[in-house]
Amino acid sequence: MDPTTLTYPDLLAAAARIAGHAHVTPVLRSASLDAIAGATLSFKAEHLQRAGAFKFRGACNAVWSLSDAQAARGVVTHSSGNHGGALALAARTRGIPCHVVVPEGAVQAKLAAIEAYGAILHRCAPGIAARETECTRVQTETGAELVHPYTDARVIAGQGTAALELFNAGGPFDALVVPVGGGGLASGTALALAAVSPRTRLFLAEPAGAAETAASLRSSERVVDFVPDTICDGLRGTLGAPNFSLLRAAQAEVLVVDDAATTAAMRLLWQRTKQLVEPSSAITLAAVLANRERFAGQQVGLILSGGNVDLDALPWSVATA
Amino acid sequence: MDPTTLTYPDLLAAAARIAGHAHVTPVLRSASLDAIAGATLSFKAEHLQRAGAFKFRGACNAVWSLSDAQAARGVVTHSSGNHGGALALAARTRGIPCHVVVPEGAVQAKLAAIEAYGAILHRCAPGIAARETECTRVQTETGAELVHPYTDARVIAGQGTAALELFNAGGPFDALVVPVGGGGLASGTALALAAVSPRTRLFLAEPAGAAETAASLRSSERVVDFVPDTICDGLRGTLGAPNFSLLRAAQAEVLVVDDAATTAAMRLLWQRTKQLVEPSSAITLAAVLANRERFAGQQVGLILSGGNVDLDALPWSVATA
Repeated sequence: MDPTTLTYPDLLAAAARIAGHAHVTPVLRSASLDAIAGATLSFKAEHLQRAGAFKFRGACNAVWSLSDAQAARGVVTHSSGNHGGALALAARTRGIPCHVVVPEGAVQAKLAAIEAYGAILHRCAPGIAARETECTRVQTETGAELVHPYTDARVIAGQGTAALELFNAGGPFDALVVPVGGGGLASGTALALAAVSPRTRLFLAEPAGAAETAASLRSSERVVDFVPDTICDGLRGTLGAPNFSLLRAAQAEVLVVDDAATTAAMRLLWQRTKQLVEPSSAITLAAVLANRERFAGQQVGLILSGGNVDLDALPWSVATA
Repeated sequence: MDPTTLTYPDLLAAAARIAGHAHVTPVLRSASLDAIAGATLSFKAEHLQRAGAFKFRGACNAVWSLSDAQAARGVVTHSSGNHGGALALAARTRGIPCHVVVPEGAVQAKLAAIEAYGAILHRCAPGIAARETECTRVQTETGAELVHPYTDARVIAGQGTAALELFNAGGPFDALVVPVGGGGLASGTALALAAVSPRTRLFLAEPAGAAETAASLRSSERVVDFVPDTICDGLRGTLGAPNFSLLRAAQAEVLVVDDAATTAAMRLLWQRTKQLVEPSSAITLAAVLANRERFAGQQVGLILSGGNVDLDALPWSVATA
């Protein structure tokens, strides 16, 4: 299916399909963060989603969209990050095989997590070309269905369910702020917003070190040639082609945020909400705080995309002193 | 009031008094932690309480127990930790003055937090004698009511409301595990348990580096002469006399936990629940994991006492890599 033809009924079908598998995550409020922002903030807590990120929604919708015959042959993707784990767990909810192609040199802890969810790992050389070659090989050999992390229509529809729940629990909103990397969550949110609240403005929080979405929307041509440099490890991917089309149509506005602001916002979130969110989540709050005048006095929804902080990077003896 | 004469109606009165001021915190579950523990764990999330710890319950009950004439003269305590902040915030809910005596050398960030809640700080020399002298001076000068962090009957009754809520939302339980320091939460929990579920066993998780409660209950005499050495900064206080009597009467059992086990449990909680709890909270899970056979297959309630992790001790550039 062409993602640019997705409509509200596709999102509702996704919501029905993932119900009972995905969590309806809570919407969190913080009086002290409201005071700091000068706005009323509602945080959609996707770090409390299964596998620790919104990614489970799209993966789950893709897995449960398959016919029984397709499903029996399994699914495949290439991702050493949250999507790989999410697809593995989604496949497990249906009891089908999941193949994940991972490049040599990927973080061992992440691979262990993907394997723990029951996926079969396939190693390949680093680089997107090697990954795609290996993915095609696995597809040919097994007949598994490819589930791309963010350009797949089923994935985009699934990601859009987070915003549907947010509006349902906490709306109405003047503005919604979501992180943008490959654009799965961002374009799914754009579709949700068009359906349930067209007057709500959509803002995309993007790291300065991977700001190709800002450049793409500015030049009306998708920028693909860049080298990401940001602590937001979930936002290093390149904006997908259908995601670009959907975000352009939605007139989404990008707010570019530097890593220092994201780190400060993450610290604030940890301190004030006691929620362990990852940098790719905190960038939404950073975007609001860096553009205070744009949100003053407004009702603002923010999607906290995930909580997969690399705990191995924390010095435990120091952290507990 | 003598805390050893506290009864169920006192706890119910405390619950009514703090309603509308304190949060009814959620009870959290984690399938993966259940699998690790081999038991069904229900976590009372007091790190999501106002001011970040259960301490607000007792402080709030004390403040709202005062007559209008008493209240007008304010409250005073000596604590540079969670109780100081909790009492300051509780006093603010009633719009009355709060004096906090703090020793020279206390952590600046904690003092700033207490001041941010509107308390008046009074500096004194380090050591319990200097603190008590300064406290008495402030009392004499202002007529403020002393609210001790854990021996005050109003405080103990307030702390007991956390267990009442836990039983209400998640019971019945075979066992309850709470941290023990001065014993305010522990003895309040003992009173709650005696009233609503006498068959539930009460376990106290205590750091090996401050295990005077274990020694006291073993020898039937309160041990006060020890030098605490533990990362559990909330559990360094000396077990209070009325707390000792209440815990002895309740036949509470102490589980002594070393800091390495607490740190590992804290890491597990951060990773699996995305909740930023402090070491004094994580010690309850550590106690269960270190005594697996005692809890196998049981319904276990654990109180996560607070989330005031010293974020300044985290190296932010590393943590976000």
